[in-house]
Amino acid sequence: MTKLIGRRQFTIEWGHCDPAGIVFNARFFEYFDWGTWGLFELALGVKPHDLAAVYGILGIPLVGSGARFIAPARFGDEVELTSRVTEFRRSSFNVEHSIAVRGAIAIEGRETRVWAIRDPADPDRIKAQPIPAEVTAKFQMAV
Amino acid sequence: MTKLIGRRQFTIEWGHCDPAGIVFNARFFEYFDWGTWGLFELALGVKPHDLAAVYGILGIPLVGSGARFIAPARFGDEVELTSRVTEFRRSSFNVEHSIAVRGAIAIEGRETRVWAIRDPADPDRIKAQPIPAEVTAKFQMAV
Amino acid sequence: MTKLIGRRQFTIEWGHCDPAGIVFNARFFEYFDWGTWGLFELALGVKPHDLAAVYGILGIPLVGSGARFIAPARFGDEVELTSRVTEFRRSSFNVEHSIAVRGAIAIEGRETRVWAIRDPADPDRIKAQPIPAEVTAKFQMAV
Amino acid sequence: MTKLIGRRQFTIEWGHCDPAGIVFNARFFEYFDWGTWGLFELALGVKPHDLAAVYGILGIPLVGSGARFIAPARFGDEVELTSRVTEFRRSSFNVEHSIAVRGAIAIEGRETRVWAIRDPADPDRIKAQPIPAEVTAKFQMAV
Repeated sequence: MTKLIGRRQFTIEWGHCDPAGIVFNARFFEYFDWGTWGLFELALGVKPHDLAAVYGILGIPLVGSGARFIAPARFGDEVELTSRVTEFRRSSFNVEHSIAVRGAIAIEGRETRVWAIRDPADPDRIKAQPIPAEVTAKFQMAV
Repeated sequence: MTKLIGRRQFTIEWGHCDPAGIVFNARFFEYFDWGTWGLFELALGVKPHDLAAVYGILGIPLVGSGARFIAPARFGDEVELTSRVTEFRRSSFNVEHSIAVRGAIAIEGRETRVWAIRDPADPDRIKAQPIPAEVTAKFQMAV
Repeated sequence: MTKLIGRRQFTIEWGHCDPAGIVFNARFFEYFDWGTWGLFELALGVKPHDLAAVYGILGIPLVGSGARFIAPARFGDEVELTSRVTEFRRSSFNVEHSIAVRGAIAIEGRETRVWAIRDPADPDRIKAQPIPAEVTAKFQMAV
Repeated sequence: MTKLIGRRQFTIEWGHCDPAGIVFNARFFEYFDWGTWGLFELALGVKPHDLAAVYGILGIPLVGSGARFIAPARFGDEVELTSRVTEFRRSSFNVEHSIAVRGAIAIEGRETRVWAIRDPADPDRIKAQPIPAEVTAKFQMAV
Protein backbone atom coordinates (compact mmCIF):
# COMPACT_ATOMS: atom_id res chain seq x y z
CA MET A 1 0.00 0.00 0.00
CA THR A 2 1.50 3.32 -1.04
CA LYS A 3 0.67 6.55 0.74
CA LEU A 4 -0.21 8.88 -2.09
CA ILE A 5 -3.92 9.29 -2.77
CA GLY A 6 -5.30 10.94 -5.87
CA ARG A 7 -8.70 12.59 -5.66
CA ARG A 8 -10.96 13.99 -8.35
CA GLN A 9 -14.43 15.45 -7.99
CA PHE A 10 -16.80 15.48 -10.90
CA THR A 11 -20.47 15.42 -11.76
CA ILE A 12 -22.13 12.52 -13.54
CA GLU A 13 -23.04 13.56 -17.08
CA TRP A 14 -26.25 12.79 -18.96
CA GLY A 15 -24.30 11.05 -21.71
CA HIS A 16 -22.67 8.71 -19.18
CA CYS A 17 -26.00 7.24 -18.10
CA ASP A 18 -28.06 4.45 -19.60
CA PRO A 19 -31.81 3.95 -19.93
CA ALA A 20 -31.95 2.88 -16.27
CA GLY A 21 -30.85 6.45 -15.49
CA ILE A 22 -27.59 5.29 -13.93
CA VAL A 23 -23.99 5.36 -15.13
CA PHE A 24 -23.45 2.69 -17.79
CA ASN A 25 -21.02 0.18 -16.33
CA ALA A 26 -18.28 0.60 -18.95
CA ARG A 27 -18.00 4.31 -18.13
CA PHE A 28 -16.65 3.52 -14.69
CA PHE A 29 -13.56 2.10 -16.33
CA GLU A 30 -13.09 5.42 -18.09
CA TYR A 31 -13.26 7.08 -14.68
CA PHE A 32 -10.70 4.63 -13.29
CA ASP A 33 -8.42 5.47 -16.20
CA TRP A 34 -8.79 9.18 -15.37
CA GLY A 35 -7.87 8.33 -11.81
CA THR A 36 -4.69 6.50 -12.70
CA TRP A 37 -3.43 9.22 -15.04
CA GLY A 38 -4.21 11.83 -12.41
CA LEU A 39 -2.45 9.88 -9.69
CA PHE A 40 0.68 9.51 -11.79
CA GLU A 41 0.69 13.22 -12.55
CA LEU A 42 0.31 13.97 -8.85
CA ALA A 43 3.11 11.57 -7.90
CA LEU A 44 5.61 12.30 -10.62
CA GLY A 45 4.84 15.90 -11.54
CA VAL A 46 4.73 14.81 -15.17
CA LYS A 47 1.79 15.58 -17.44
CA PRO A 48 0.09 12.35 -18.56
CA HIS A 49 0.87 12.99 -22.23
CA ASP A 50 4.56 13.41 -21.37
CA LEU A 51 4.82 10.26 -19.24
CA ALA A 52 5.93 7.98 -22.06
CA ALA A 53 8.61 10.35 -23.32
CA VAL A 54 9.97 11.29 -19.88
CA TYR A 55 10.42 7.66 -18.81
CA GLY A 56 11.22 6.12 -22.19
CA ILE A 57 8.23 3.80 -22.07
CA LEU A 58 5.33 3.00 -24.34
CA GLY A 59 2.89 3.55 -21.49
CA ILE A 60 1.22 1.80 -18.59
CA PRO A 61 -1.21 -0.57 -20.30
CA LEU A 62 -3.75 -2.62 -18.40
CA VAL A 63 -3.45 -6.36 -17.98
CA GLY A 64 -6.46 -6.67 -15.72
CA SER A 65 -9.28 -4.70 -14.18
CA GLY A 66 -12.40 -5.17 -12.15
CA ALA A 67 -15.19 -3.38 -10.37
CA ARG A 68 -17.77 -3.88 -7.66
CA PHE A 69 -20.99 -1.94 -8.11
CA ILE A 70 -22.41 -1.37 -4.64
CA ALA A 71 -24.84 1.45 -5.36
CA PRO A 72 -25.64 3.31 -8.56
CA ALA A 73 -24.40 6.75 -9.57
CA ARG A 74 -27.01 8.89 -11.31
CA PHE A 75 -27.09 11.86 -13.69
CA GLY A 76 -26.17 14.95 -11.69
CA ASP A 77 -24.58 13.11 -8.79
CA GLU A 78 -21.49 14.85 -7.51
CA VAL A 79 -18.96 12.12 -6.94
CA GLU A 80 -15.42 11.79 -5.67
CA LEU A 81 -13.00 9.38 -7.26
CA THR A 82 -10.15 8.24 -5.00
CA SER A 83 -7.18 6.36 -6.49
CA ARG A 84 -4.17 4.73 -4.86
CA VAL A 85 -1.44 2.29 -5.88
CA THR A 86 -1.81 -0.65 -3.54
CA GLU A 87 1.22 -2.58 -4.71
CA PHE A 88 4.24 -2.08 -6.90
CA ARG A 89 5.87 -5.26 -8.13
CA ARG A 90 8.97 -5.50 -10.31
CA SER A 91 7.29 -4.36 -13.52
CA SER A 92 3.60 -4.25 -12.72
CA PHE A 93 1.40 -2.58 -10.17
CA ASN A 94 -2.14 -2.48 -8.81
CA VAL A 95 -4.28 0.63 -8.53
CA GLU A 96 -7.42 0.71 -6.41
CA HIS A 97 -10.17 3.19 -7.10
CA SER A 98 -13.32 4.06 -5.23
CA ILE A 99 -16.15 6.37 -6.15
CA ALA A 100 -18.12 7.99 -3.38
CA VAL A 101 -21.65 9.21 -3.97
CA ARG A 102 -23.17 11.35 -1.23
CA GLY A 103 -20.38 10.36 1.10
CA ALA A 104 -20.68 6.59 0.73
CA ILE A 105 -18.54 4.34 -1.43
CA ALA A 106 -20.76 3.32 -4.34
CA ILE A 107 -18.27 1.74 -6.73
CA GLU A 108 -14.89 0.10 -6.18
CA GLY A 109 -12.42 -0.59 -8.94
CA ARG A 110 -9.03 -2.12 -9.44
CA GLU A 111 -6.54 -2.10 -12.25
CA THR A 112 -3.37 -4.06 -12.82
CA ARG A 113 -0.98 -2.30 -15.17
CA VAL A 114 2.52 -2.86 -16.48
CA TRP A 115 5.41 -0.50 -17.03
CA ALA A 116 5.86 -1.28 -20.69
CA ILE A 117 8.12 -0.69 -23.62
CA ARG A 118 7.69 -1.75 -27.21
CA ASP A 119 9.33 -5.13 -27.63
CA PRO A 120 12.55 -4.47 -29.60
CA ALA A 121 12.26 -7.95 -31.12
CA ASP A 122 8.67 -7.42 -32.29
CA PRO A 123 7.30 -3.85 -32.41
CA ASP A 124 3.73 -5.23 -32.43
CA ARG A 125 4.22 -6.56 -28.91
CA ILE A 126 4.83 -4.86 -25.61
CA LYS A 127 7.34 -5.92 -23.00
CA ALA A 128 7.24 -5.25 -19.28
CA GLN A 129 10.18 -3.34 -17.81
CA PRO A 130 11.36 -2.90 -14.21
CA ILE A 131 9.70 0.14 -12.67
CA PRO A 132 12.41 2.65 -11.67
CA ALA A 133 12.88 2.98 -7.91
CA GLU A 134 12.61 6.75 -8.23
CA VAL A 135 9.09 6.27 -9.59
CA THR A 136 7.84 3.97 -6.86
CA ALA A 137 9.43 6.13 -4.16
CA LYS A 138 7.32 9.11 -5.20
CA PHE A 139 4.11 7.25 -4.40
CA GLN A 140 5.18 6.92 -0.77
CA MET A 141 4.71 10.62 -0.11
CA ALA A 142 1.49 11.76 1.47
CA VAL A 143 0.16 14.89 -0.20
CA MET B 1 -21.58 -24.05 -16.06
CA THR B 2 -24.55 -23.78 -18.42
CA LYS B 3 -24.46 -25.21 -21.93
CA LEU B 4 -25.68 -22.34 -24.04
CA ILE B 5 -22.97 -20.29 -25.72
CA GLY B 6 -23.59 -16.93 -27.37
CA ARG B 7 -21.32 -15.85 -30.19
CA ARG B 8 -20.98 -12.55 -31.97
CA GLN B 9 -18.49 -11.58 -34.64
CA PHE B 10 -17.57 -7.96 -35.19
CA THR B 11 -14.78 -5.74 -36.40
CA ILE B 12 -12.91 -3.35 -34.13
CA GLU B 13 -13.86 0.22 -34.98
CA TRP B 14 -11.56 3.24 -35.23
CA GLY B 15 -13.54 5.06 -32.57
CA HIS B 16 -13.07 2.18 -30.13
CA CYS B 17 -9.28 2.54 -30.15
CA ASP B 18 -7.04 4.83 -28.16
CA PRO B 19 -3.80 6.62 -29.05
CA ALA B 20 -1.90 3.34 -28.59
CA GLY B 21 -3.92 2.07 -31.56
CA ILE B 22 -5.64 -0.60 -29.46
CA VAL B 23 -9.13 -0.91 -28.05
CA PHE B 24 -9.54 1.40 -25.05
CA ASN B 25 -10.07 -0.80 -22.02
CA ALA B 26 -13.51 0.52 -21.06
CA ARG B 27 -14.88 -0.47 -24.47
CA PHE B 28 -14.43 -4.14 -23.67
CA PHE B 29 -17.10 -3.79 -21.00
CA GLU B 30 -19.43 -2.45 -23.67
CA TYR B 31 -18.68 -5.59 -25.68
CA PHE B 32 -19.34 -7.80 -22.65
CA ASP B 33 -22.67 -6.03 -22.20
CA TRP B 34 -23.51 -6.78 -25.86
CA GLY B 35 -22.64 -10.38 -25.18
CA THR B 36 -24.92 -10.74 -22.20
CA TRP B 37 -27.92 -9.18 -23.92
CA GLY B 38 -27.32 -11.37 -26.95
CA LEU B 39 -27.01 -14.50 -24.84
CA PHE B 40 -30.30 -13.79 -23.07
CA GLU B 41 -32.03 -13.22 -26.39
CA LEU B 42 -30.63 -16.50 -27.68
CA ALA B 43 -31.68 -18.38 -24.55
CA LEU B 44 -35.09 -16.88 -23.93
CA GLY B 45 -36.21 -15.87 -27.41
CA VAL B 46 -37.03 -12.45 -26.01
CA LYS B 47 -35.69 -9.24 -27.53
CA PRO B 48 -33.43 -7.42 -25.06
CA HIS B 49 -35.68 -4.38 -24.89
CA ASP B 50 -38.65 -6.64 -24.01
CA LEU B 51 -36.84 -8.59 -21.28
CA ALA B 52 -37.93 -6.34 -18.42
CA ALA B 53 -41.59 -6.31 -19.44
CA VAL B 54 -41.80 -10.04 -20.23
CA TYR B 55 -40.37 -11.08 -16.86
CA GLY B 56 -41.69 -8.23 -14.73
CA ILE B 57 -38.23 -7.09 -13.72
CA LEU B 58 -36.30 -3.84 -13.79
CA GLY B 59 -33.41 -5.51 -15.57
CA ILE B 60 -30.26 -7.48 -14.93
CA PRO B 61 -27.91 -4.88 -13.45
CA LEU B 62 -24.26 -5.56 -12.75
CA VAL B 63 -22.90 -5.94 -9.26
CA GLY B 64 -19.41 -6.85 -10.37
CA SER B 65 -17.24 -7.21 -13.43
CA GLY B 66 -13.67 -7.84 -14.41
CA ALA B 67 -11.34 -8.44 -17.33
CA ARG B 68 -7.98 -9.91 -18.17
CA PHE B 69 -6.19 -8.31 -21.09
CA ILE B 70 -3.92 -10.95 -22.58
CA ALA B 71 -3.26 -9.43 -25.99
CA PRO B 72 -4.50 -6.24 -27.59
CA ALA B 73 -7.26 -5.92 -30.17
CA ARG B 74 -6.56 -3.36 -32.89
CA PHE B 75 -8.53 -1.25 -35.35
CA GLY B 76 -9.79 -3.54 -38.09
CA ASP B 77 -9.32 -6.78 -36.18
CA GLU B 78 -12.12 -9.22 -36.79
CA VAL B 79 -12.97 -10.64 -33.41
CA GLU B 80 -15.34 -13.18 -31.95
CA LEU B 81 -17.03 -12.60 -28.62
CA THR B 82 -18.16 -15.75 -26.79
CA SER B 83 -20.46 -15.48 -23.77
CA ARG B 84 -21.75 -18.09 -21.36
CA VAL B 85 -23.47 -18.15 -17.96
CA THR B 86 -21.13 -20.05 -15.69
CA GLU B 87 -23.36 -20.10 -12.63
CA PHE B 88 -26.92 -19.28 -11.71
CA ARG B 89 -27.49 -18.67 -8.03
CA ARG B 90 -30.83 -17.89 -6.36
CA SER B 91 -31.06 -14.31 -7.62
CA SER B 92 -27.69 -13.60 -9.21
CA PHE B 93 -25.54 -15.15 -11.90
CA ASN B 94 -22.11 -15.02 -13.48
CA VAL B 95 -21.42 -14.54 -17.18
CA GLU B 96 -18.03 -15.28 -18.68
CA HIS B 97 -16.93 -13.66 -21.91
CA SER B 98 -13.93 -14.15 -24.10
CA ILE B 99 -12.80 -12.29 -27.17
CA ALA B 100 -10.74 -14.11 -29.75
CA VAL B 101 -8.46 -12.23 -32.11
CA ARG B 102 -6.99 -14.21 -34.98
CA GLY B 103 -8.09 -17.43 -33.33
CA ALA B 104 -6.48 -16.85 -29.93
CA ILE B 105 -8.21 -15.61 -26.77
CA ALA B 106 -7.04 -12.04 -26.31
CA ILE B 107 -9.41 -10.76 -23.63
CA GLU B 108 -11.40 -12.54 -20.94
CA GLY B 109 -14.24 -10.93 -19.02
CA ARG B 110 -16.68 -11.78 -16.30
CA GLU B 111 -19.83 -10.16 -15.04
CA THR B 112 -21.95 -10.80 -11.98
CA ARG B 113 -25.52 -9.63 -12.42
CA VAL B 114 -28.72 -9.77 -10.43
CA TRP B 115 -32.30 -10.48 -11.47
CA ALA B 116 -33.73 -7.26 -10.10
CA ILE B 117 -36.97 -5.45 -9.45
CA ARG B 118 -37.53 -1.95 -8.19
CA ASP B 119 -37.72 -2.09 -4.40
CA PRO B 120 -41.41 -1.57 -3.55
CA ALA B 121 -40.37 0.04 -0.28
CA ASP B 122 -38.01 2.52 -1.98
CA PRO B 123 -38.31 3.05 -5.74
CA ASP B 124 -34.79 4.50 -5.84
CA ARG B 125 -33.36 1.13 -4.86
CA ILE B 126 -33.29 -2.20 -6.62
CA LYS B 127 -34.02 -5.55 -5.01
CA ALA B 128 -32.80 -8.96 -6.13
CA GLN B 129 -35.49 -11.51 -6.96
CA PRO B 130 -35.31 -15.31 -7.38
CA ILE B 131 -34.52 -16.17 -10.99
CA PRO B 132 -37.43 -18.24 -12.41
CA ALA B 133 -36.56 -21.90 -12.98
CA GLU B 134 -37.92 -21.63 -16.53
CA VAL B 135 -35.26 -18.99 -17.23
CA THR B 136 -32.30 -20.93 -15.91
CA ALA B 137 -33.49 -24.11 -17.66
CA LYS B 138 -33.25 -22.44 -21.04
CA PHE B 139 -29.51 -21.86 -20.64
CA GLN B 140 -28.95 -25.61 -20.38
CA MET B 141 -29.75 -26.15 -24.04
CA ALA B 142 -26.91 -26.41 -26.49
CA VAL B 143 -27.65 -24.44 -29.65
CA MET C 1 -27.86 36.29 -29.31
CA THR C 2 -28.28 35.97 -25.56
CA LYS C 3 -25.78 37.44 -23.13
CA LEU C 4 -25.09 34.56 -20.79
CA ILE C 5 -21.94 32.57 -21.52
CA GLY C 6 -21.15 29.24 -19.95
CA ARG C 7 -17.53 28.22 -19.56
CA ARG C 8 -15.94 24.94 -18.56
CA GLN C 9 -12.28 24.05 -18.42
CA PHE C 10 -11.17 20.47 -18.70
CA THR C 11 -8.29 18.33 -19.82
CA ILE C 12 -8.51 15.96 -22.78
CA GLU C 13 -8.51 12.37 -21.52
CA TRP C 14 -6.62 9.42 -23.00
CA GLY C 15 -9.85 7.52 -23.51
CA HIS C 16 -11.31 10.39 -25.56
CA CYS C 17 -8.59 10.11 -28.21
CA ASP C 18 -8.33 7.87 -31.24
CA PRO C 19 -5.36 6.17 -32.89
CA ALA C 20 -4.42 9.48 -34.52
CA GLY C 21 -3.80 10.73 -30.97
CA ILE C 22 -6.56 13.34 -31.23
CA VAL C 23 -10.05 13.55 -29.78
CA PHE C 24 -12.38 11.21 -31.65
CA ASN C 25 -14.94 13.38 -33.42
CA ALA C 26 -18.03 11.97 -31.68
CA ARG C 27 -16.63 12.95 -28.28
CA PHE C 28 -16.95 16.62 -29.14
CA PHE C 29 -20.72 16.20 -29.16
CA GLU C 30 -20.47 14.83 -25.63
CA TYR C 31 -18.58 17.99 -24.70
CA PHE C 32 -21.25 20.16 -26.37
CA ASP C 33 -23.88 18.31 -24.35
CA TRP C 34 -21.93 19.07 -21.16
CA GLY C 35 -21.85 22.70 -22.23
CA THR C 36 -25.60 22.97 -22.74
CA TRP C 37 -26.47 21.36 -19.41
CA GLY C 38 -23.94 23.59 -17.68
CA LEU C 39 -25.28 26.71 -19.36
CA PHE C 40 -28.85 25.91 -18.31
CA GLU C 41 -27.73 25.32 -14.74
CA LEU C 42 -25.90 28.65 -14.78
CA ALA C 43 -28.90 30.47 -16.24
CA LEU C 44 -31.71 28.89 -14.28
CA GLY C 45 -30.03 27.87 -11.04
CA VAL C 46 -31.52 24.42 -11.49
CA LYS C 47 -29.45 21.25 -11.38
CA PRO C 48 -29.54 19.48 -14.75
CA HIS C 49 -31.17 16.39 -13.31
CA ASP C 50 -33.94 18.56 -11.82
CA LEU C 51 -34.63 20.52 -15.01
CA ALA C 52 -37.37 18.22 -16.29
CA ALA C 53 -39.23 18.13 -12.98
CA VAL C 54 -38.92 21.85 -12.25
CA TYR C 55 -40.32 22.90 -15.63
CA GLY C 56 -42.68 20.00 -16.24
CA ILE C 57 -40.91 18.93 -19.42
CA LEU C 58 -39.43 15.74 -20.75
CA GLY C 59 -36.17 17.50 -21.49
CA ILE C 60 -34.41 19.52 -24.16
CA PRO C 61 -33.74 16.96 -26.89
CA LEU C 62 -31.65 17.72 -29.94
CA VAL C 63 -33.15 18.10 -33.39
CA GLY C 64 -29.91 19.08 -35.05
CA SER C 65 -26.23 19.53 -34.41
CA GLY C 66 -23.01 20.25 -36.21
CA ALA C 67 -19.33 20.93 -35.77
CA ARG C 68 -16.39 22.48 -37.54
CA PHE C 69 -13.02 20.95 -36.73
CA ILE C 70 -10.42 23.65 -37.25
CA ALA C 71 -7.53 22.19 -35.31
CA PRO C 72 -7.20 18.98 -33.32
CA ALA C 73 -7.33 18.61 -29.55
CA ARG C 74 -4.86 16.11 -28.12
CA PHE C 75 -4.48 13.96 -25.00
CA GLY C 76 -3.49 16.26 -22.15
CA ASP C 77 -4.60 19.49 -23.83
CA GLU C 78 -6.21 21.87 -21.38
CA VAL C 79 -9.20 23.25 -23.19
CA GLU C 80 -11.99 25.72 -22.53
CA LEU C 81 -15.51 25.06 -23.71
CA THR C 82 -17.66 28.16 -24.19
CA SER C 83 -21.41 27.82 -24.72
CA ARG C 84 -24.10 30.38 -25.51
CA VAL C 85 -27.70 30.36 -26.70
CA THR C 86 -27.69 32.31 -29.95
CA GLU C 87 -31.41 32.27 -30.55
CA PHE C 88 -34.58 31.36 -28.69
CA ARG C 89 -37.57 30.71 -30.91
CA ARG C 90 -41.10 29.82 -29.75
CA SER C 91 -40.27 26.26 -28.73
CA SER C 92 -36.75 25.64 -29.98
CA PHE C 93 -33.38 27.26 -29.57
CA ASN C 94 -29.82 27.22 -30.86
CA VAL C 95 -26.72 26.79 -28.74
CA GLU C 96 -23.27 27.61 -30.05
CA HIS C 97 -20.18 26.06 -28.55
CA SER C 98 -16.51 26.65 -29.10
CA ILE C 99 -13.51 24.83 -27.73
CA ALA C 100 -10.27 26.73 -27.33
CA VAL C 101 -6.96 24.90 -27.27
CA ARG C 102 -3.95 26.95 -26.23
CA GLY C 103 -5.95 30.14 -26.62
CA ALA C 104 -7.20 29.55 -30.16
CA ILE C 105 -10.62 28.25 -31.20
CA ALA C 106 -10.04 24.70 -32.39
CA ILE C 107 -13.57 23.35 -32.63
CA GLU C 108 -16.92 25.04 -33.13
CA GLY C 109 -20.25 23.36 -32.51
CA ARG C 110 -23.91 24.12 -32.72
CA GLU C 111 -26.99 22.42 -31.40
CA THR C 112 -30.68 22.98 -32.08
CA ARG C 113 -32.87 21.75 -29.26
CA VAL C 114 -36.54 21.80 -28.41
CA TRP C 115 -38.37 22.45 -25.16
CA ALA C 116 -40.26 19.18 -25.14
CA ILE C 117 -42.99 17.30 -23.35
CA ARG C 118 -44.19 13.78 -23.87
CA ASP C 119 -47.00 13.86 -26.42
CA PRO C 120 -50.20 13.25 -24.41
CA ALA C 121 -51.72 11.62 -27.49
CA ASP C 122 -48.79 9.22 -27.98
CA PRO C 123 -46.35 8.71 -25.09
CA ASP C 124 -43.74 7.35 -27.54
CA ARG C 125 -43.50 10.74 -29.21
CA ILE C 126 -42.32 14.09 -27.98
CA LYS C 127 -44.03 17.41 -28.57
CA ALA C 128 -42.46 20.86 -28.61
CA GLN C 129 -43.83 23.37 -26.11
CA PRO C 130 -43.49 27.16 -25.89
CA ILE C 131 -40.42 28.08 -23.88
CA PRO C 132 -41.52 30.09 -20.81
CA ALA C 133 -40.57 33.77 -20.97
CA GLU C 134 -39.05 33.49 -17.49
CA VAL C 135 -36.62 30.93 -18.90
CA THR C 136 -35.47 32.92 -21.91
CA ALA C 137 -35.15 36.09 -19.81
CA LYS C 138 -32.57 34.46 -17.59
CA PHE C 139 -30.19 33.95 -20.51
CA GLN C 140 -30.05 37.72 -21.05
CA MET C 141 -28.06 38.28 -17.87
CA ALA C 142 -24.34 38.62 -18.15
CA VAL C 143 -22.57 36.68 -15.38
CA MET D 1 -23.27 12.60 -56.17
CA THR D 2 -21.41 9.32 -56.49
CA LYS D 3 -23.18 6.04 -57.21
CA LEU D 4 -21.76 3.73 -54.60
CA ILE D 5 -23.90 3.23 -51.51
CA GLY D 6 -22.66 1.58 -48.34
CA ARG D 7 -25.17 -0.15 -46.10
CA ARG D 8 -24.84 -1.57 -42.62
CA GLN D 9 -27.53 -3.11 -40.45
CA PHE D 10 -27.17 -3.17 -36.70
CA THR D 11 -29.17 -3.18 -33.52
CA ILE D 12 -29.17 -0.30 -31.05
CA GLU D 13 -27.30 -1.34 -27.92
CA TRP D 14 -28.28 -0.63 -24.31
CA GLY D 15 -25.01 1.19 -23.71
CA HIS D 16 -25.66 3.54 -26.63
CA CYS D 17 -28.83 4.93 -25.04
CA ASP D 18 -29.29 7.68 -22.51
CA PRO D 19 -31.74 8.11 -19.62
CA ALA D 20 -34.44 9.13 -22.12
CA GLY D 21 -34.13 5.58 -23.48
CA ILE D 22 -32.93 6.79 -26.87
CA VAL D 23 -29.54 6.82 -28.55
CA PHE D 24 -27.35 9.54 -27.03
CA ASN D 25 -26.70 12.10 -29.76
CA ALA D 26 -22.90 11.75 -29.83
CA ARG D 27 -23.20 8.04 -30.62
CA PHE D 28 -24.68 8.83 -34.03
CA PHE D 29 -21.37 10.34 -35.03
CA GLU D 30 -19.72 7.05 -34.12
CA TYR D 31 -22.21 5.34 -36.44
CA PHE D 32 -21.43 7.84 -39.22
CA ASP D 33 -17.73 7.08 -38.76
CA TRP D 34 -18.48 3.36 -39.12
CA GLY D 35 -20.36 4.20 -42.30
CA THR D 36 -17.52 6.11 -43.89
CA TRP D 37 -14.91 3.46 -43.14
CA GLY D 38 -17.26 0.80 -44.48
CA LEU D 39 -17.98 2.76 -47.63
CA PHE D 40 -14.28 3.22 -48.35
CA GLU D 41 -13.66 -0.48 -47.85
CA LEU D 42 -16.52 -1.27 -50.21
CA ALA D 43 -15.25 1.19 -52.84
CA LEU D 44 -11.54 0.54 -52.67
CA GLY D 45 -11.36 -3.06 -51.51
CA VAL D 46 -8.91 -1.95 -48.84
CA LYS D 47 -9.38 -2.76 -45.16
CA PRO D 48 -9.86 0.44 -43.15
CA HIS D 49 -6.73 -0.15 -41.09
CA ASP D 50 -4.71 -0.50 -44.30
CA LEU D 51 -6.08 2.63 -45.97
CA ALA D 52 -3.35 4.97 -44.73
CA ALA D 53 -0.52 2.66 -45.75
CA VAL D 54 -1.96 1.74 -49.15
CA TYR D 55 -2.48 5.37 -50.20
CA GLY D 56 0.43 6.95 -48.35
CA ILE D 57 -1.82 9.20 -46.30
CA LEU D 58 -2.31 9.95 -42.65
CA GLY D 59 -6.02 9.31 -42.94
CA ILE D 60 -9.27 11.00 -43.83
CA PRO D 61 -9.87 13.33 -40.88
CA LEU D 62 -13.05 15.30 -40.41
CA VAL D 63 -13.23 19.04 -40.89
CA GLY D 64 -16.96 19.26 -40.38
CA SER D 65 -20.00 17.21 -39.51
CA GLY D 66 -23.66 17.59 -38.74
CA ALA D 67 -26.85 15.71 -38.05
CA ARG D 68 -30.59 16.13 -38.15
CA PHE D 69 -32.52 14.12 -35.58
CA ILE D 70 -35.96 13.48 -37.05
CA ALA D 71 -37.09 10.62 -34.86
CA PRO D 72 -35.38 8.78 -32.03
CA ALA D 73 -33.71 5.37 -32.21
CA ARG D 74 -34.28 3.18 -29.17
CA PHE D 75 -32.60 0.24 -27.45
CA GLY D 76 -33.26 -2.84 -29.54
CA ASP D 77 -34.22 -0.99 -32.71
CA GLU D 78 -32.89 -2.68 -35.81
CA VAL D 79 -31.57 0.10 -37.98
CA GLU D 80 -29.96 0.49 -41.36
CA LEU D 81 -27.18 2.99 -41.93
CA THR D 82 -26.76 4.16 -45.52
CA SER D 83 -23.66 6.13 -46.54
CA ARG D 84 -22.71 7.81 -49.81
CA VAL D 85 -20.11 10.33 -50.98
CA THR D 86 -22.10 13.24 -52.36
CA GLU D 87 -19.17 15.25 -53.64
CA PHE D 88 -15.47 14.83 -54.21
CA ARG D 89 -13.52 18.06 -54.45
CA ARG D 90 -9.79 18.40 -55.08
CA SER D 91 -8.69 17.26 -51.64
CA SER D 92 -11.87 17.05 -49.61
CA PHE D 93 -15.20 15.30 -49.89
CA ASN D 94 -18.66 15.09 -48.36
CA VAL D 95 -20.30 11.94 -47.07
CA GLU D 96 -24.02 11.76 -46.38
CA HIS D 97 -25.44 9.23 -43.98
CA SER D 98 -28.95 8.27 -43.08
CA ILE D 99 -30.26 5.90 -40.46
CA ALA D 100 -33.58 4.21 -41.06
CA VAL D 101 -35.64 2.91 -38.15
CA ARG D 102 -38.61 0.72 -39.05
CA GLY D 103 -38.30 1.75 -42.67
CA ALA D 104 -38.34 5.52 -42.16
CA ILE D 105 -35.34 7.84 -42.09
CA ALA D 106 -34.89 8.83 -38.47
CA ILE D 107 -31.47 10.49 -38.52
CA GLU D 108 -29.50 12.20 -41.27
CA GLY D 109 -25.82 12.99 -41.04
CA ARG D 110 -23.10 14.59 -43.08
CA GLU D 111 -19.35 14.65 -42.83
CA THR D 112 -16.74 16.69 -44.63
CA ARG D 113 -13.37 15.01 -44.66
CA VAL D 114 -9.96 15.65 -46.19
CA TRP D 115 -7.48 13.37 -47.84
CA ALA D 116 -4.59 14.19 -45.57
CA ILE D 117 -0.90 13.68 -45.08
CA ARG D 118 1.30 14.75 -42.22
CA ASP D 119 2.67 18.19 -43.03
CA PRO D 120 6.36 17.62 -43.92
CA ALA D 121 7.15 21.10 -42.58
CA ASP D 122 5.42 20.48 -39.23
CA PRO D 123 4.63 16.89 -38.22
CA ASP D 124 2.07 18.18 -35.68
CA ARG D 125 -0.07 19.49 -38.51
CA ILE D 126 -1.93 17.78 -41.30
CA LYS D 127 -2.01 18.89 -44.92
CA ALA D 128 -4.70 18.19 -47.49
CA GLN D 129 -3.60 16.34 -50.64
CA PRO D 130 -5.28 15.88 -54.00
CA ILE D 131 -7.48 12.79 -53.97
CA PRO D 132 -6.20 10.34 -56.61
CA ALA D 133 -8.51 9.99 -59.62
CA GLU D 134 -8.39 6.21 -59.22
CA VAL D 135 -9.94 6.63 -55.79
CA THR D 136 -12.81 8.88 -56.82
CA ALA D 137 -13.52 6.71 -59.89
CA LYS D 138 -14.23 3.72 -57.70
CA PHE D 139 -17.13 5.50 -55.98
CA GLN D 140 -18.92 5.80 -59.32
CA MET D 141 -19.63 2.08 -59.49
CA ALA D 142 -23.00 0.86 -58.36
CA VAL D 143 -22.70 -2.31 -56.27
